[in-house]
Amino acid sequence: MAMVCLSDFEAYAKKYLPKIAWDYFAAGADDCTTRDENILAYKRIRFRPRMLRDVSVVDIRTKILGSEISFPVGIAPTGFHQLAWPDGEKSTARAARAMSTCYVASTYSTCTLEEISRAAPGGLRWFQLYIHRNRAASQQLVRRAEALGFRGLVLTADLPYTGKRRDDVRNGFRLPPHMKVKNLEGAFEVCKMRQGQTPRDLCIVAAQMSFPFAVSFWLQGDDCSEYGLPPNSLDPSVTWNDIYWLRSLTHLPIIIKGILTREDAELAVRHGVQAIIVSNHGGRQLDEGPATIDALVEVVEAVRGRVEVYVDGGIRKGSDVLKALALGAKCVFIGRPALWGLAYRGEEGLQDVLRILQDEFRLSMALAGCASVSEIGPHMVQFSKL
Amino acid sequence: MAMVCLSDFEAYAKKYLPKIAWDYFAAGADDCTTRDENILAYKRIRFRPRMLRDVSVVDIRTKILGSEISFPVGIAPTGFHQLAWPDGEKSTARAARAMSTCYVASTYSTCTLEEISRAAPGGLRWFQLYIHRNRAASQQLVRRAEALGFRGLVLTADLPYTGKRRDDVRNGFRLPPHMKVKNLEGAFEVCKMRQGQTPRDLCIVAAQMSFPFAVSFWLQGDDCSEYGLPPNSLDPSVTWNDIYWLRSLTHLPIIIKGILTREDAELAVRHGVQAIIVSNHGGRQLDEGPATIDALVEVVEAVRGRVEVYVDGGIRKGSDVLKALALGAKCVFIGRPALWGLAYRGEEGLQDVLRILQDEFRLSMALAGCASVSEIGPHMVQFSKL
Amino acid sequence: MAMVCLSDFEAYAKKYLPKIAWDYFAAGADDCTTRDENILAYKRIRFRPRMLRDVSVVDIRTKILGSEISFPVGIAPTGFHQLAWPDGEKSTARAARAMSTCYVASTYSTCTLEEISRAAPGGLRWFQLYIHRNRAASQQLVRRAEALGFRGLVLTADLPYTGKRRDDVRNGFRLPPHMKVKNLEGAFEVCKMRQGQTPRDLCIVAAQMSFPFAVSFWLQGDDCSEYGLPPNSLDPSVTWNDIYWLRSLTHLPIIIKGILTREDAELAVRHGVQAIIVSNHGGRQLDEGPATIDALVEVVEAVRGRVEVYVDGGIRKGSDVLKALALGAKCVFIGRPALWGLAYRGEEGLQDVLRILQDEFRLSMALAGCASVSEIGPHMVQFSKL
Amino acid sequence: MAMVCLSDFEAYAKKYLPKIAWDYFAAGADDCTTRDENILAYKRIRFRPRMLRDVSVVDIRTKILGSEISFPVGIAPTGFHQLAWPDGEKSTARAARAMSTCYVASTYSTCTLEEISRAAPGGLRWFQLYIHRNRAASQQLVRRAEALGFRGLVLTADLPYTGKRRDDVRNGFRLPPHMKVKNLEGAFEVCKMRQGQTPRDLCIVAAQMSFPFAVSFWLQGDDCSEYGLPPNSLDPSVTWNDIYWLRSLTHLPIIIKGILTREDAELAVRHGVQAIIVSNHGGRQLDEGPATIDALVEVVEAVRGRVEVYVDGGIRKGSDVLKALALGAKCVFIGRPALWGLAYRGEEGLQDVLRILQDEFRLSMALAGCASVSEIGPHMVQFSKL
Repeated sequence: MAMVCLSDFEAYAKKYLPKIAWDYFAAGADDCTTRDENILAYKRIRFRPRMLRDVSVVDIRTKILGSEISFPVGIAPTGFHQLAWPDGEKSTARAARAMSTCYVASTYSTCTLEEISRAAPGGLRWFQLYIHRNRAASQQLVRRAEALGFRGLVLTADLPYTGKRRDDVRNGFRLPPHMKVKNLEGAFEVCKMRQGQTPRDLCIVAAQMSFPFAVSFWLQGDDCSEYGLPPNSLDPSVTWNDIYWLRSLTHLPIIIKGILTREDAELAVRHGVQAIIVSNHGGRQLDEGPATIDALVEVVEAVRGRVEVYVDGGIRKGSDVLKALALGAKCVFIGRPALWGLAYRGEEGLQDVLRILQDEFRLSMALAGCASVSEIGPHMVQFSKL
Repeated sequence: MAMVCLSDFEAYAKKYLPKIAWDYFAAGADDCTTRDENILAYKRIRFRPRMLRDVSVVDIRTKILGSEISFPVGIAPTGFHQLAWPDGEKSTARAARAMSTCYVASTYSTCTLEEISRAAPGGLRWFQLYIHRNRAASQQLVRRAEALGFRGLVLTADLPYTGKRRDDVRNGFRLPPHMKVKNLEGAFEVCKMRQGQTPRDLCIVAAQMSFPFAVSFWLQGDDCSEYGLPPNSLDPSVTWNDIYWLRSLTHLPIIIKGILTREDAELAVRHGVQAIIVSNHGGRQLDEGPATIDALVEVVEAVRGRVEVYVDGGIRKGSDVLKALALGAKCVFIGRPALWGLAYRGEEGLQDVLRILQDEFRLSMALAGCASVSEIGPHMVQFSKL
Repeated sequence: MAMVCLSDFEAYAKKYLPKIAWDYFAAGADDCTTRDENILAYKRIRFRPRMLRDVSVVDIRTKILGSEISFPVGIAPTGFHQLAWPDGEKSTARAARAMSTCYVASTYSTCTLEEISRAAPGGLRWFQLYIHRNRAASQQLVRRAEALGFRGLVLTADLPYTGKRRDDVRNGFRLPPHMKVKNLEGAFEVCKMRQGQTPRDLCIVAAQMSFPFAVSFWLQGDDCSEYGLPPNSLDPSVTWNDIYWLRSLTHLPIIIKGILTREDAELAVRHGVQAIIVSNHGGRQLDEGPATIDALVEVVEAVRGRVEVYVDGGIRKGSDVLKALALGAKCVFIGRPALWGLAYRGEEGLQDVLRILQDEFRLSMALAGCASVSEIGPHMVQFSKL
Repeated sequence: MAMVCLSDFEAYAKKYLPKIAWDYFAAGADDCTTRDENILAYKRIRFRPRMLRDVSVVDIRTKILGSEISFPVGIAPTGFHQLAWPDGEKSTARAARAMSTCYVASTYSTCTLEEISRAAPGGLRWFQLYIHRNRAASQQLVRRAEALGFRGLVLTADLPYTGKRRDDVRNGFRLPPHMKVKNLEGAFEVCKMRQGQTPRDLCIVAAQMSFPFAVSFWLQGDDCSEYGLPPNSLDPSVTWNDIYWLRSLTHLPIIIKGILTREDAELAVRHGVQAIIVSNHGGRQLDEGPATIDALVEVVEAVRGRVEVYVDGGIRKGSDVLKALALGAKCVFIGRPALWGLAYRGEEGLQDVLRILQDEFRLSMALAGCASVSEIGPHMVQFSKL
């Protein structure tokens, strides 16, 4: 099977991953409308290609928060890479470094931050974090990341509770026994079952709480305590003021992820973040919000250049990267395609994915008449928001 | 089979209900365009989700006409619940009370109002009525409902004749012999067949009247007289002035159901109704009228807060409820999903349906950044009418 | 099989007609885009139904050019009814009279005008004509029609040449030997094959003319001369001035059929026609022109009430009739559905079709809150042209 | 199998061509969105047909750059005609001359310019060229074309690198051993493999260059050197100034092909080209640029009649030609349909294709009420750009 484009990796992953893992990675919330819209929205954008411009040399390098990357595509934070490849996030870190781009490691990694760092010393990495009810746990993670040389903190803002992903509920999604959310081990008191209480009891307890879907995947099965997580460890009471608290913990730049409106973009800037990732969590949180490429335009207008803006969701071709940059993104991040690459051949497979995107992006630029990233702009596309 | 979302209940009902019953519940008029549009129209509305708002507590309670309900979803009036579950409307009444919401009992119930009341004393219930040619029959029903503690009268305005539901005609839809429209027993003189006349003759008589489709389902088969209904018992000459007549019969609030235009919304307010249900009868009456969520916007604008506005039709997810409220509805009502719940497991099944909607609604609110029903508003959605 | 709606008749005809006949009736030009758009365009129009209006009596009668018809649906001119039913146009004439509506007999009938007249004396009929290269032939037809009591002349304006209907070309469409275009027998010199010339030669001759597709169906097979028609008997040089010539031949009202633009509507009025039929020949002529219901609006605006405007194409339900009237048509005409009715059971089948449309139209009016044809208007619909 | 319309030829070619050849001709870049949009965009344009105009004679002749052609459809440059028919471009040349239209011979022909000229002396032909890194090679080609009586030079502007056509990569597309890009033989130094180097090595070398997809088809297999081409022989550094260089080589008119924006149209005029072909290379270069018929409108507006404008891409019916002319094209060119005709029966098959288009175009004109090409204009269509 020739691996020619990202869809080939998707087909491979769908065929060879365990169904429960494929479903987890593929899942969108509810009807998966937003997940699919992320892709469809790119197809509504038309290029205005220009001819007879010298494109013998095409410079695709760019910088994000001052660090150079080989091309404007980074690895978005996604959980549980061991579900895709035995070495998990260590492979991801190595591939990202090999391709000279940025890897945003997820809190929900199946390797520790330390393992990730050791796997690819010197690579450009950011750390994605949530704010937990137990703030000390979050603080500990921030300190560890900073000490390990992570160069940015990506605060996920769109997950006060987990979205309702029907297939995960149907599958009773849980990690296999030999995988753990290692970063959080010891960070919380273990969620202990009382004497005579079964995991099913815990489920019932959870179901009586406000958000049964939100916690369902933590509580399915009989080893939830292994995750070292109480039900609902994330804090749904977080507000913009918590940015100040986070700011007080670290000198790392703070990138806020999950912004979809001009109002929130303005608030993000005012609260001093260094960058925004326009994201809808791959369509896994609130279904029927905007496609990210549609929201990007609104956010870029609101931000007026005061901070860098990135986007994730729906990137499947090099030309999608070009469109996102034309509409104002400084860089894009890929989620599922990175997992497909891992599922194909670990580090090597992810490098293949990145290299294909890189080649396609460079070719798209050339065919659109653009010789360097700095020449990309809104004049290159015809955009009509749905 | 895991019952994760309302579609699961729909699939169950389609599989296990007798075809004639499923078809009757599923039926739309003519090409079923409006029935399907009710659902599609919701998908055209996009949320504008807001982040980092304290959603640790999400208050989903609301009030309709002064009565508190646990969340803004009530049970719309639909006929013949015994077709879905042996206990029929008694189960419906129990489930609604258990979930602390409003149940609008239909005139065409297969249990009497008295049986419904006894099944769930103290529950919040409204009574749906038609105006019959025989006004005394209508008057008697109003008096009974009032005496039994029903707290509102829902006047259906969109059924001067029954819409043309092709499958019902093909199936020769009729109630099984052991079910009756009990509320109307004795309310009319029985439609007597003359000596030597067969039911087929009656059909022919009816077919020579103006609206053969309208009466077809009453006259199919050989026991039409059992319904205690003459052909065309409903009065197609009803006008807005009959609201005054109805007003004179009762102190109960009058809710008018079936309004789709600003003009009729204005007339409803002027004629003193207490609330409006924007409805197209589930797409079972005039095909190719507007989707209810589209009509809602127009009605809400016309009403300018003078009366409460509700909507039914097409609600399949908690996020649909949130959209309807964002566009100005005070509450929504579900029709077919309630029947699917009944078909699954009677009272318990309907509670499951309501609980899923409740959980999804609460989660949608949280993910959209909204902590109480009072915060919901048009700023939360991007709406483009077809 | 229950015959509940017009689609049932379509399915029957498709199943039981010879393929060559079905294909001929069903044919559209080229990609059949316009044929299908005629139907789809109706689905884009939404009603604005009004409630609580006295619809106990619904008067659906109307007048066209002063003659009363039982409801605003007539029979459009279509050719070769014997392909659908042995009695051909005689059955059509009887059904139209039985239902008290207007039948427009086609020049290309398989019965003579005289046979049609004798079949249903006293029925309201118009005659559809083309202008032939041999004007005397056209003049003779006009005189015959007038003498037989036809009350209007429908001049088809959109067929200077026959459109390219692929299936007819593939099928080598021709009338079976026992059918003839009887009205034209003797009206022209027979197209004689020269000694030693085969019909194939004639085809070749025709193919060397300008419009091979246009004449293909006259020349396929070995008995083209039986039709009594030379290749290309129709005159493609006809212009608006020929209306004056036609006017000079007869006192009958002239209805022009095939108008699709405001410019031609204005010309039609200026040249003194009594009425316009907005038509695209069922999508059988120029493909990718407008749907007739879309063109109707433009024509009605241009005409400003100076002449009556009718429409054909795409009418499949009573509610389509209501939409056409709401947008300014005085009456609609049905083509293919009439043929389906004939194919089902001749005169009786066509009556069934008309009666279903009549019942559906009346019911649509009532459900839209409209008690007589005179109340129908543009306020009843929301129209967005593609 | 009756060959009634161009789709019939497409179906034939798909069935009988070797898969690798069909795939090559059918290929579009990436997701093939633009390739398909070229066709879909025509379907969004509606005619405004006019009636009762004398169309007894329909004059479809036109002139391009002063040369008369029998109708406004020429043969676009496409490569490798021997993949479709043994005689290759010689058959194409003969068919074009027989139908009195213009044939644009591709640089990537499998016959030499000399063979093409000898095959159909006196035919109207233009030569399509690229600008090679080795300018002497291009100069030599221009001189040969001029000497052989080619009457125009079509400079392809949209191929600084080859687009990514997935199927070609999967198939490892290469010409069969007995075919060669004959025009370029000897024009370049042969790409020599060093001792001990295999073609696979060359592939690897190429893959390390900037545009692996761009060169992939030259380098697949073991006989790349036979093409007489170094990897990446085309010059991606070409700019508008090279038009002046080309101008200096020849007195032939220069037609620039591949323009899609008003900005480039203006530049083309300013740099002195004689005509523009609005083209996206059949959707084979930058995917998700505009459909050519959409871009045509923009280019025509910008050009304001200063040079002739043509269009290619998506022409499948005579009515498409009429639409393109109505929107301002002086002539259209067909690519794939010509290849389908060749695949069917060589010269004869291509004549069939052209004759069908001619007949359909003439019939469309007549049915739209248009008697000569000079009467065609924007009033004939209703155009809404996507």
